Amino acid sequence: MVYLDYNASTPVDQRILPALTEAVGAFGNPASLHHSAGQAAAELVEEARGRVALLANRPSRDVIFTSGASEAAVIALLGLMLGVRGRPDIVVSPTEHKAILAAAELGARLSGGEVRHIKVDESGVIDLDALEHLLDESVAVMATMAANNETGVLAPVAEAAAIAKRHGVLSFIDATQVVGKGPLDEVSKAADLMVFSSHKIYGPKGAGALIADRHIQKLLVPIAAGGGQERGLRGGTQNTPAIVGFGLAAELAMKEQVTDTTRIGALAAMLMAELRLGLRDVHLNAAGAQRLSNTLNVRFIDADAEAVMASMPDVQVSAGSACQSAVPIPSHVLLAMGLSGVAASESLRISLGRPTTEEDVMAAARAISAAVTRVRELTSHWKGS
Amino acid sequence: MVYLDYNASTPVDQRILPALTEAVGAFGNPASLHHSAGQAAAELVEEARGRVALLANRPSRDVIFTSGASEAAVIALLGLMLGVRGRPDIVVSPTEHKAILAAAELGARLSGGEVRHIKVDESGVIDLDALEHLLDESVAVMATMAANNETGVLAPVAEAAAIAKRHGVLSFIDATQVVGKGPLDEVSKAADLMVFSSHKIYGPKGAGALIADRHIQKLLVPIAAGGGQERGLRGGTQNTPAIVGFGLAAELAMKEQVTDTTRIGALAAMLMAELRLGLRDVHLNAAGAQRLSNTLNVRFIDADAEAVMASMPDVQVSAGSACQSAVPIPSHVLLAMGLSGVAASESLRISLGRPTTEEDVMAAARAISAAVTRVRELTSHWKGS
Repeated sequence: MVYLDYNASTPVDQRILPALTEAVGAFGNPASLHHSAGQAAAELVEEARGRVALLANRPSRDVIFTSGASEAAVIALLGLMLGVRGRPDIVVSPTEHKAILAAAELGARLSGGEVRHIKVDESGVIDLDALEHLLDESVAVMATMAANNETGVLAPVAEAAAIAKRHGVLSFIDATQVVGKGPLDEVSKAADLMVFSSHKIYGPKGAGALIADRHIQKLLVPIAAGGGQERGLRGGTQNTPAIVGFGLAAELAMKEQVTDTTRIGALAAMLMAELRLGLRDVHLNAAGAQRLSNTLNVRFIDADAEAVMASMPDVQVSAGSACQSAVPIPSHVLLAMGLSGVAASESLRISLGRPTTEEDVMAAARAISAAVTRVRELTSHWKGS
Repeated sequence: MVYLDYNASTPVDQRILPALTEAVGAFGNPASLHHSAGQAAAELVEEARGRVALLANRPSRDVIFTSGASEAAVIALLGLMLGVRGRPDIVVSPTEHKAILAAAELGARLSGGEVRHIKVDESGVIDLDALEHLLDESVAVMATMAANNETGVLAPVAEAAAIAKRHGVLSFIDATQVVGKGPLDEVSKAADLMVFSSHKIYGPKGAGALIADRHIQKLLVPIAAGGGQERGLRGGTQNTPAIVGFGLAAELAMKEQVTDTTRIGALAAMLMAELRLGLRDVHLNAAGAQRLSNTLNVRFIDADAEAVMASMPDVQVSAGSACQSAVPIPSHVLLAMGLSGVAASESLRISLGRPTTEEDVMAAARAISAAVTRVRELTSHWKGS
């Protein structure tokens, strides 16, 4: 079995597991500050906050812990659309994760405004000239993603944020896929609000962060005030063990990013080379753009991606993002890049990760090549009959 | 050290830990249904859904997993206030958890309506006659809590829901404290929407549920649609390990509720008797009402609760709920019951749990009696000087 779907979720790094298990024992409610069980939990949460802050290159007070990036995006985008007066519109890239698109739609509905879509090129990269003309004083916030989850394409976040700033528009950046894999510092500098998740960086599920400074925090109408936790922006008892694991995963991401990305990038290049060696008509989507080194979005012409996946149960990849995977519809990201429905449905997302080995890559190359060949044969037979 | 703050949070039951640890290994994204890593995680989530459904006496499809009760309440109450047309108002009991009150306020703001408060008696019990007159065709939903987190007082949920139904008003019930400790079946029958949490029933933090049938689900505007998980009502990658633990905790709650409540109730009665034996002027708040057997909200006249807690670091109890514990303001629940600010600030919440022993109770009785005596002496000295 070869798992190559690390952009969907990552295993918890083995080095984190002991601390994670220990933190389950720190069961006090972190809000129970008048007794030691609560204090112990609160201290663990604050240590983790420091680690995540360090990764984001921000002060600890900028870190709001949530249950994940999706919840963080809801708190940020709905909170802003309700909190920023006189700017009812929101601008998004059409290649955003569905969670961001959904939050943007609802946010615009609540503010009585509309969602405007940024033009992107054939790699899904924001058109900065078009952006300049799209922004005006009716727009509260621009939502972009630092690295696309399906293609790995990096956005020109600094340039886009500079344009936004000139129009008084805030920059919200989904940094989920860039953490540990790309230029997070640059993203953090560009972002007025930024979200990311623990389970995409070898931490446990159930933790994520909204990063924003206190001036931005004050703009937000609290969507989930709850009992006032997390500066009143994310109520509900903090998930101490998940937050502890998130903190340690953040520390590892910082320490190992360079070696990880170099090694994983070489493996991904090897996989791509092997696929091209074994198969005709292999096309790397968004090949011309700057991309995360771990992500390959590959079109195998005349081979339906669902059929290819069904034909190789021992290699775990995806078509589109995990969140859309239950429904086999063509990826909205690839369609936004101008791919046809057919081209999109022939595209696989292959994402490598920290545990990936050379053996994994060679086994995957063989299995994918065989599966694509099989599907192409069946397809041509069926078409010919 | 004696922990008597189980209404704030509970330790994970030791019997759940192995499965919880194992589930951390099932790291696939439960939405990645085209490969075995995702399928394995999805199966674990569905098994847990079955267990939680059984506890709630509902079909599995009624269970929406969230990160906790607070998030479930936000999804339910904001979703309803946006989804139910022509009924902009919401009715709440003033003794609700702050998370519910906050969601109700925001919900009414979004629908352009108002929050109406139900009259409660000196025990915090809903006045059913007043409720009858409070409800009308402008009200979308009535939010009540099955058992109060600070006093343990049980609400007449069936009667209240019947009144609501006559007015076409939906019944939202916060069942967080009643699960495993009180009449959940009755609550489930009365509730159109119900929420509860894992970490209050000896499950891990990071999981909760919104329970509602599919007709009610369809009424909700999805606040957190995300990638479409959980019937489109709670997006974001499911927290597999926390959900697995929640499921097992639900199973244990069902199996052991009767023995737990009997045993814990006897211990609580013993504690109360010991306190009355050792101290003068001990008053059990809401003594006349039907209450959870594990919860004692006790006023020690002339002894400030914060001072008492500071004077007994080895006994962990609280004043008010955990969520307000960072700020020493009098409990809004006790104030709503008509207690004076002074009376409220002299009240401690003592909540027993599954691990509580007779030794714990005796040690706590001694420590509390000594602390109250000490604080009273200091106070009278200070007042006299």
